[in-house]
Amino acid sequence: MLKQVIVVREDLDLPLGKLASQVAHASLEAALQAGETRDEWRDAGAKKIVVRCGDNTTLRELKDRCVELGIPCYLVRDAGHTVVEPGTLTALGVGPGSENRVDRVTGGLEPV
Amino acid sequence: MLKQVIVVREDLDLPLGKLASQVAHASLEAALQAGETRDEWRDAGAKKIVVRCGDNTTLRELKDRCVELGIPCYLVRDAGHTVVEPGTLTALGVGPGSENRVDRVTGGLEPV
Repeated sequence: MLKQVIVVREDLDLPLGKLASQVAHASLEAALQAGETRDEWRDAGAKKIVVRCGDNTTLRELKDRCVELGIPCYLVRDAGHTVVEPGTLTALGVGPGSENRVDRVTGGLEPV
Repeated sequence: MLKQVIVVREDLDLPLGKLASQVAHASLEAALQAGETRDEWRDAGAKKIVVRCGDNTTLRELKDRCVELGIPCYLVRDAGHTVVEPGTLTALGVGPGSENRVDRVTGGLEPV
């Protein structure tokens, strides 16, 4: 089973629309890095789970872990026009990849 | 200026994580239909706005309007494993396209 997990920072307490657009940004960019796996995943329903992490440091560590494991990922740095300071890290797209491999990065995180 | 607007049904009152994953699904699939415009839009920051509409009928009408105008779009039909009934329409991705054209479909809708 293939899945994508999108991690958002809960400490930023983003408004609903802002949170959803950051999740979409992370999802799209991570998916565009996934090559053939992207279409396999889409054909199987494109499972996407949104989870939360506590802070900036955790988000960076999760990203480094993806890079180590060779899992497609994308860390969103917000342009900061509206809600947050320019350059704020807001969300991380992890995968699509096999459930096992993605869980090695995000397995301990709770759903939003 | 290019943008993408994602319309979600407010009457379903989706939980946060479910709403965000539906928005991501609509965004990704509409973007994959956009051809070269997709990369222009991404290079310019991939502006995404999340708005709301009142019901199923409105979501279908907005989709028909996109098709008439030749704007890339994707209507999400949820598999219904968890929160909603199978086949429920939850969200519509509109664009990316020029702000003017996208506003001809979604201009009257309020942010979530």
